[in-house]
Amino acid sequence: MRFELTLLGTNSALPAYGRFPSAQVLNVQERHYLVDCGEGAQIRMSQFGVRRSKIQQVFISHLHGDHIFGLAGFLSSMALLGREDPIELYSPKGLEEMVRVLFKYSGGLSFPLHFHTLDTEKNQLIFEDKAITVHSLPLVHRVPSAGFLFREKERPRNMRPEKIETYNIHYRDIPAIKAGADYVLPDGRRISNEELTLPPPAPRSYAYCSDTAYHEPLASMIQGVDLLYHESTFCEDMREQAVLTGHSTARQAAEIARLAGAGRLILGHYSSRYKSLKPFLEEARAVFPNTELGDDGRVFEVEA
Amino acid sequence: MRFELTLLGTNSALPAYGRFPSAQVLNVQERHYLVDCGEGAQIRMSQFGVRRSKIQQVFISHLHGDHIFGLAGFLSSMALLGREDPIELYSPKGLEEMVRVLFKYSGGLSFPLHFHTLDTEKNQLIFEDKAITVHSLPLVHRVPSAGFLFREKERPRNMRPEKIETYNIHYRDIPAIKAGADYVLPDGRRISNEELTLPPPAPRSYAYCSDTAYHEPLASMIQGVDLLYHESTFCEDMREQAVLTGHSTARQAAEIARLAGAGRLILGHYSSRYKSLKPFLEEARAVFPNTELGDDGRVFEVEA
Repeated sequence: MRFELTLLGTNSALPAYGRFPSAQVLNVQERHYLVDCGEGAQIRMSQFGVRRSKIQQVFISHLHGDHIFGLAGFLSSMALLGREDPIELYSPKGLEEMVRVLFKYSGGLSFPLHFHTLDTEKNQLIFEDKAITVHSLPLVHRVPSAGFLFREKERPRNMRPEKIETYNIHYRDIPAIKAGADYVLPDGRRISNEELTLPPPAPRSYAYCSDTAYHEPLASMIQGVDLLYHESTFCEDMREQAVLTGHSTARQAAEIARLAGAGRLILGHYSSRYKSLKPFLEEARAVFPNTELGDDGRVFEVEA
Repeated sequence: MRFELTLLGTNSALPAYGRFPSAQVLNVQERHYLVDCGEGAQIRMSQFGVRRSKIQQVFISHLHGDHIFGLAGFLSSMALLGREDPIELYSPKGLEEMVRVLFKYSGGLSFPLHFHTLDTEKNQLIFEDKAITVHSLPLVHRVPSAGFLFREKERPRNMRPEKIETYNIHYRDIPAIKAGADYVLPDGRRISNEELTLPPPAPRSYAYCSDTAYHEPLASMIQGVDLLYHESTFCEDMREQAVLTGHSTARQAAEIARLAGAGRLILGHYSSRYKSLKPFLEEARAVFPNTELGDDGRVFEVEA
């Protein structure tokens, strides 16, 4: 059961050094969730083998161009490929107005768009399906901005196959046992659920925090997250610029990861002032050793 | 004195096989004109070494996404690079509405945009500067669509340097001679302009015709053009599809080039149904031998 993040773009506003603007796809059990959609996202999807037609939900953090200017192209290509299934879009206010105008003069799309406006002040459940829940995370930026916490749902316990034979259990009783029930034999003996089942794998989680200034309350909202992508537009040498523009440094990203007790930290949203990314990695690892550099095309898996 | 076309994207709507959607830059004597601006155009400019900050005019053929979805990203990057000079945009009706909405929620741009709405029914002068004139070309497509004819202005005649010495010509008289005047010596003798000057190089020209169905009147509007980019979305095997969608086949593009007496034909705007472009080239060359395949990053020069 996959839980895998593919980075499509890891630069900040100005694409540079072969790095595209922000976009990524989270694959949870073959459901594909698109997170931000900077220019060229659909081109990256083809390059990196992402099955774009499987995307049904799009989560947009904020309405700066480097997080949305690839959306119209992506939707347009879906229509050309004959898509009929709706796409659900979650974003701060204004996205619908933008998208509607972009297709006003070209004849529209072949499938419905459903827009959901986020309250970027609130940490709340915004979406769920069979596999996951998604919570919004209030961020601190120059325009209303939200992060996203993707959390796998608890899966049922796993039946021990050998016990089915031992106790001659009927298949119709299995769902109840997997859901946690004990089993009562015809002679009245009660077999405990612990004996019959194995615990399910622990639910996995991923948090996307971009764009944002250093914002400590985030750490408690994503406590224990397995994988954290936290923007690091600058290094500490440009901390003042980070404060001015509502961004974070690599050290600050690492600080959030440390406070949250995250499993792993991915850096990204690099300013085009930096060609080499080595300083980002060194700075963050000094605070949070399990840090990796995000890069276009890199894939991060969370194992079960 | 350069006259050089750089192709940034040569595929039709669906980017495929490494080919981006439509965009190109014409460099005439170091003035840079952007023609259409599909998604990823600014990324291609960096890749292919186009000096994007030199662009002052943008010519948009029509409002289908594959010709405009890179515009917001391009403008946004110009602002991030601190641009203050205005950008002039020529397009069918609707572009201003789109662009204004895209920047409504992100705080706007650092430089002015001047929008010019084209009458896509007319073949008329829409722009001129010191180097060129640009005429609109009515095209036949599913939405209002215009092609563009770029024509270098006639340059002044060139002074023969040895004649300046022979006749002891004062430098203040040279502009008049270069403009065509004879020269009268102090003793009254008249020296003919032909003796004093060499003719200037012939003005060069480039025509962009995309997107359009086969439209014979185009040929007379671009008669004698040096370089012609004519869309060839399909080959003859899909002629019916071409008619249905308002596009041309490679053979039809070649037919227009032949009727126009063009110097050279470039094909482009290929449907993503075609991976190999060889059939386009063979089909067009059978009608117009001096045909080349457009491809992302290819540069076509017209020599003086």
